Amino acid sequence: MGGDQAPRMVVAGANMARKRFPGAEFLLFGDRALIEPLLASFPALAKVARIEHTEEMVAADAKPSVALRRGRQTSMRLAIDAVRDERADAMVSAGNTGALMAMAKVVLRTLPGIDRPAIAGIFPTRRGETVMLDLGANIECSADNLVDFALMGALLARAVLGVVRPTVGLLNVGEEELKGHEEIRQAGAILRGADLPFDFHGFVEGDDITAGTVDVVVTDGFTGNVALKTAEGAAQLYADYLRRAIQGSWRGRLGYMLARPAFRALREKVDPRRHNGAMFVGLNGIAVKSHGGTDSLGFSNAIGVAVDTVMQGFNERIGTELSHLHRVHGAGPKAAAC
Amino acid sequence: MGGDQAPRMVVAGANMARKRFPGAEFLLFGDRALIEPLLASFPALAKVARIEHTEEMVAADAKPSVALRRGRQTSMRLAIDAVRDERADAMVSAGNTGALMAMAKVVLRTLPGIDRPAIAGIFPTRRGETVMLDLGANIECSADNLVDFALMGALLARAVLGVVRPTVGLLNVGEEELKGHEEIRQAGAILRGADLPFDFHGFVEGDDITAGTVDVVVTDGFTGNVALKTAEGAAQLYADYLRRAIQGSWRGRLGYMLARPAFRALREKVDPRRHNGAMFVGLNGIAVKSHGGTDSLGFSNAIGVAVDTVMQGFNERIGTELSHLHRVHGAGPKAAAC
Repeated sequence: MGGDQAPRMVVAGANMARKRFPGAEFLLFGDRALIEPLLASFPALAKVARIEHTEEMVAADAKPSVALRRGRQTSMRLAIDAVRDERADAMVSAGNTGALMAMAKVVLRTLPGIDRPAIAGIFPTRRGETVMLDLGANIECSADNLVDFALMGALLARAVLGVVRPTVGLLNVGEEELKGHEEIRQAGAILRGADLPFDFHGFVEGDDITAGTVDVVVTDGFTGNVALKTAEGAAQLYADYLRRAIQGSWRGRLGYMLARPAFRALREKVDPRRHNGAMFVGLNGIAVKSHGGTDSLGFSNAIGVAVDTVMQGFNERIGTELSHLHRVHGAGPKAAAC
Repeated sequence: MGGDQAPRMVVAGANMARKRFPGAEFLLFGDRALIEPLLASFPALAKVARIEHTEEMVAADAKPSVALRRGRQTSMRLAIDAVRDERADAMVSAGNTGALMAMAKVVLRTLPGIDRPAIAGIFPTRRGETVMLDLGANIECSADNLVDFALMGALLARAVLGVVRPTVGLLNVGEEELKGHEEIRQAGAILRGADLPFDFHGFVEGDDITAGTVDVVVTDGFTGNVALKTAEGAAQLYADYLRRAIQGSWRGRLGYMLARPAFRALREKVDPRRHNGAMFVGLNGIAVKSHGGTDSLGFSNAIGVAVDTVMQGFNERIGTELSHLHRVHGAGPKAAAC
């Protein structure tokens, strides 16, 4: 029921995902009176989907604490409960982010050894794609949190991007070891000294995100959220300038008509729906947040992120690697930092 | 002597600035043997320029602390000394940023009432231009630092952008009063309660920077530096995609040739040289940092920033407004935050 175009885009998105993932089955949480007629228009989906009826839903502007206390029968909460009860392998929602994070944390709990879950996203770069986390779950992060994010991000890059041994960078204001916040320098020291299932690249800067310098960019939720939105804004500004330049003359307009397929390819390339689906990592169960303003294509991509992580056994791997990492660096600089 | 193409681009840039600002005079600090032949090719500039000879210079990779201790005879230091001694109204350098900040802080000292200087830049937005600060001088900032930055940013917007009553926003991860770091929430509370010479808009998010939601975006030096570089990276990625899309087909290439003037206009619009020149604000004297990789056109724009701020009496205004602001909010939430 969450998202601007819900529940239509959710049902249509599930139908798109069904074609991409033939074995998948769907539980649709929400108002049967609204969902049933939509489902009727996708008979192939209807065969592999079941509606779990509830009339309650989390409002887009609800406070997380209120949603948590009073929202036990909401569609969002019931979907998370289904993951906890192992009736579903993953849940996807385009609803209220704060409420989703709060509910998922309480219902699914964090993985053993993980203090805080994070929000991870996948972004286009000049060399391919990069995982970035945290995008806003944790405003303040300790060095240990950042180290955990590095590991979870690396495993996510392996699961979703297919990189066997990912490179990981810590977002900072310079590449020198002496720069940046205390927590970042400490996290850097821990990662440099540890035996890791990924390559620690060191510090990276803001322009390294889109340059694709590393497969995983690790940062706190405040910086990650600002960087994500700033990049979106900069791309919009560029698109705006391009449109104005083209429309400003008849030669521009004519050239545009001629090069229309190229511009269409560009639009597809920068289409935010392609990279829709932020993962809540570090929980006993998979929860994916879709952008609230997306459409069915975007929602189907968020479902794709959920399917990929389930198929790759992402959460099981985190558990194994994490106990290994903690054993190794527990005696090292991390202990000193406590 | 600082910057990739120095001293050629400095001398050529000064000559461009001379045309834009007919009354300006120039002191060129550096190696006479290198500068004199360059100056000879600009006779009109030579009439209003004087070389102040020194063979020492700050290396691009010098540590600020070392430059500060041992660099008293460097071209950078002598230029800053000239501002302190009132032989120059402002100094402009394309050299080592950290060294420049360290030297400027020690030699020029902060303005009365200002605890920390900040680096401010001017950025293109969808609605015009916006001042952003701090871009990297202060990794950690208190609420009071952010309040000072808000005032200095507003006065800079007035001086350089010509906005009579600027709007100022605090960069955060959401617009609600409860979000973000403690210091940001405190700064927000102080600004909401104070009698200000500008309009405090409240919190803004990363995409508001390029949207032009406010005339001034205030943030700490860590976040500002990451946001600036992330935006640059995102614009490069977009330009990259555009180029590849256009070059990928004959229709694309033909359309490009037809629309070439439009693409030229676009390139000019996003040309980083247009917005070259970051100001060190909060010091008893004006110091402007040019990008090290810029050319003469970019350097002349950095000189333009220096001239604008001098002509508008920017530093004198900061002093007056600051004492007023401190008087007003000294009894309010600021005192509580101390």
